Amino acid sequence: MAQEDVFKKIVSHCKEYGFVFPSSDIYDGLAAVYDYGQNGVELKNNIKQYWWQSMVLLHNNIVGIDASIFMHPTVWKASGHVDAFNDPLIDNRDSKKRYRADNLIEDQIGKYEEKIEKEVAKAAKKFGDAFDETKFRETNPRVLENQKKRDDLHARYTEAMQGPDLEALKQIILDEGIVDPISGTTNWTDVRQFNLMFSTEMGASAEAASKIYLRPETAQGIFVNFLNVQKTGRMKLPFGICQIGKAFRNEIVARQFVFRMREFEQMEMQFFCQPGTEMKWFEYWKKHRLAWHEGLGMGDENYRYHDHEKLAHYANAATDIEFHMPFGFKEVEGIHSRTDFDLSQHEKFSGRQVKYFDPERNENYTPYVVETSIGVDRMFLSVMCHSYTEEALENGSSRVVLKLPEPLAPVKCAVLPLVNKDGLPEKAQEIVNNLKFHFNTHMEAKDSIGKRYRRQDAIGTPFCVTVDGDTLKDNTVTLRYRDSMKQERVPVEKLREIIEDRVSITALLKKIDID
Amino acid sequence: MAQEDVFKKIVSHCKEYGFVFPSSDIYDGLAAVYDYGQNGVELKNNIKQYWWQSMVLLHNNIVGIDASIFMHPTVWKASGHVDAFNDPLIDNRDSKKRYRADNLIEDQIGKYEEKIEKEVAKAAKKFGDAFDETKFRETNPRVLENQKKRDDLHARYTEAMQGPDLEALKQIILDEGIVDPISGTTNWTDVRQFNLMFSTEMGASAEAASKIYLRPETAQGIFVNFLNVQKTGRMKLPFGICQIGKAFRNEIVARQFVFRMREFEQMEMQFFCQPGTEMKWFEYWKKHRLAWHEGLGMGDENYRYHDHEKLAHYANAATDIEFHMPFGFKEVEGIHSRTDFDLSQHEKFSGRQVKYFDPERNENYTPYVVETSIGVDRMFLSVMCHSYTEEALENGSSRVVLKLPEPLAPVKCAVLPLVNKDGLPEKAQEIVNNLKFHFNTHMEAKDSIGKRYRRQDAIGTPFCVTVDGDTLKDNTVTLRYRDSMKQERVPVEKLREIIEDRVSITALLKKIDID
Repeated sequence: MAQEDVFKKIVSHCKEYGFVFPSSDIYDGLAAVYDYGQNGVELKNNIKQYWWQSMVLLHNNIVGIDASIFMHPTVWKASGHVDAFNDPLIDNRDSKKRYRADNLIEDQIGKYEEKIEKEVAKAAKKFGDAFDETKFRETNPRVLENQKKRDDLHARYTEAMQGPDLEALKQIILDEGIVDPISGTTNWTDVRQFNLMFSTEMGASAEAASKIYLRPETAQGIFVNFLNVQKTGRMKLPFGICQIGKAFRNEIVARQFVFRMREFEQMEMQFFCQPGTEMKWFEYWKKHRLAWHEGLGMGDENYRYHDHEKLAHYANAATDIEFHMPFGFKEVEGIHSRTDFDLSQHEKFSGRQVKYFDPERNENYTPYVVETSIGVDRMFLSVMCHSYTEEALENGSSRVVLKLPEPLAPVKCAVLPLVNKDGLPEKAQEIVNNLKFHFNTHMEAKDSIGKRYRRQDAIGTPFCVTVDGDTLKDNTVTLRYRDSMKQERVPVEKLREIIEDRVSITALLKKIDID
Repeated sequence: MAQEDVFKKIVSHCKEYGFVFPSSDIYDGLAAVYDYGQNGVELKNNIKQYWWQSMVLLHNNIVGIDASIFMHPTVWKASGHVDAFNDPLIDNRDSKKRYRADNLIEDQIGKYEEKIEKEVAKAAKKFGDAFDETKFRETNPRVLENQKKRDDLHARYTEAMQGPDLEALKQIILDEGIVDPISGTTNWTDVRQFNLMFSTEMGASAEAASKIYLRPETAQGIFVNFLNVQKTGRMKLPFGICQIGKAFRNEIVARQFVFRMREFEQMEMQFFCQPGTEMKWFEYWKKHRLAWHEGLGMGDENYRYHDHEKLAHYANAATDIEFHMPFGFKEVEGIHSRTDFDLSQHEKFSGRQVKYFDPERNENYTPYVVETSIGVDRMFLSVMCHSYTEEALENGSSRVVLKLPEPLAPVKCAVLPLVNKDGLPEKAQEIVNNLKFHFNTHMEAKDSIGKRYRRQDAIGTPFCVTVDGDTLKDNTVTLRYRDSMKQERVPVEKLREIIEDRVSITALLKKIDID
């Protein structure tokens, strides 16, 4: 099956089984905003808990905070977001539509790419087994011509984006003869910068009302609280501050389901350390964060580092941890050595001293910072993509099963009375009433046992417990494993231990022992 | 100590010990917005977990969701917030300041109240033990005059607020000669309505950009997802949908620390039931929710119901659960029978059928709804207020101790090596490394043991474990209880069980067994 089709199926599975709904669905949705359904919210909460526990609970020198979404507007001047958090936009005067100039050019690069592939495919069809693709690409004039156009354009585009040079971007669009897909014309306006922050007015008084922003990242909430946490928590370097929370970006083109949304959630840590030690900590956190991802058991081969060659102005090292999604390896977490940029900027803009007093060195200095930053929604998507499986069964039928890491599954155990009578539902409820305090346990009594297994498979429930006539006699049940579909007979009083050992986040953290 | 002073001390304690900081503190804060510090976030998370587990985990017919803050703008037309979620504002032309007209009038009522109390106090001082207060209030001409003014004003005000009648509100302000506290003049503009929703623009294209709102309540996120959750979760009436999330209101006058903020968090359940059964469920949830609060052990006498006499247009019954705060009994949770108002409105505005198909009755109908709604920040404040205690100790010194419900405490256990050498820190770390997987455990090695106990008392840590020379010989430690300050010698291997039984939310839920 093509990877694109797989992705479509995952998106539709997310809706059909209560993981992710389009926001305000009955009003036909809101672009690039999504709601988590009854199963999605549990999976997402489990991801957050796995992160929070591994970072905050297990490290004596890491604490959490929860800063507000609203912040003082000067924060975003200090951080550079007011001046530099922009996309280059261009309007077509005929269609009155607005586009991202960089996207138009990237699409044009893609067109040269397409032309090349078309030639290759045509030749492959023509020559069959005798086709030497490498040689063809190196020698065919039309391929070579389009490769040159692509490479020249790419070089010009990359240079224009550095500044960015808005006039140069427009000139590329004109030189390439890029037309508006709607009007078909090249009647373009100038390119101008569009800030991606959402703004709103706080306060009612005309003069006192102030323009504030919805935070475009959670990191600044940690930086502005650095002094308060360090002092009231008597923290000594090195130490970290964690936060989970919402952030907002007015993306012009939001893409790929929950991968790029206008409202999204981040899990971030800022780790404060002595200047000069930041590369040691950067390496430490690179390794530590990858081990955390791998601890979920989704296949070490599905992760890779992507070290940044071009660094943001505030960084002296940066890497992404990428996961193999159906649309390629994509960033799920970024690890950045942010130097003392943010704290220094806040010192400058707030007029307060934002430094650490080092009692051993008996001096004040600005700590360096290593950041680890996960997009919760991307991480959620990576888990869904990895887990979604269509399996042919021995009896000729098939099943869709979500092979979720067991500690992340929304429902850990489903208790199923074989028939909905003869005291079996009552016995099942009794089992549920014991287990439900320890992990999410549901009871389902309606429909054939096969249908119920399929439904639990589809939401990724790792354990099904079937209650039958024998249960009433010998207090044993059939325990079914989601992935292998193997079944075994176990005493009711053993259920909690067997299941808890595999579904508890605490047990997982103990097992992976990444420190 | 006056209750006002107690409250000031609690606010300052919250900042000094890392519970709550003013937002963007180094930029002098942002009005009516706060950040949760390293201890505050843990306490708040524990409150949320206690709620989520008791609602979602323990009930087979209740599930959660997490809807976005951004919603389709028509949602707020359907809910009535665009038209009716307003405060009446008035400007003074001289000071250029803006006020809530209702607050100005309420303050005026308060002034008559003050005059009465002044007369009473004066007479009480004059007559001493011979003073008959009741008689004085019933006969003194100045008291009677002010009582009449107060009651007349109150009646007029109540009537004007019904509509509300904006002209009548202005006339009251003029008739009472209410002056601007800054300019001292009565040069008032007309009263006009000010909508409390924050708005922002989504999308970049001039024509396609749309005005959207930050949700002023989380409830509508549940209503618009009713059909999706019901169908994909195969839910049968009655059932509930829970949600925890942020909401935003542009309050003109925000008050009392985290009690009324512009950005705040709600924990809400909407319970869908058959029409005609809503009063039964209203009574059920009233009782159930009170039992949940009382389960924290903060004193049953500190809670009371406040049944609403005047009902919102969508409700047919409503009550508050109030908690005894330093500034009086205040709402921490509301329980409302919202009828079929919201679902019907969404059916009307979306053009989709928003009904439940009842398989037993074989018909479609609109469910009725009972809502339970907690302000997380208010609940947080109630816990802090109840727990803050200043105690005189036997040795003549005193301590500040937060007598938090143990399962809510940010740190459950502090492990303290008696001296910071001789292998004691290493032994302490070994104990921490075992306990930290199960509950938040910190190690603190610096300063005298007395100072460390005081610091743990101040953040409400229920258990301190002291490691001394004997620990290395017989593997026992001193376990100190926060509230009684009693100490006992216990084997290291018993620690986890003793502490977990008292600090685990699961254990608490098992104990209170409210269903």
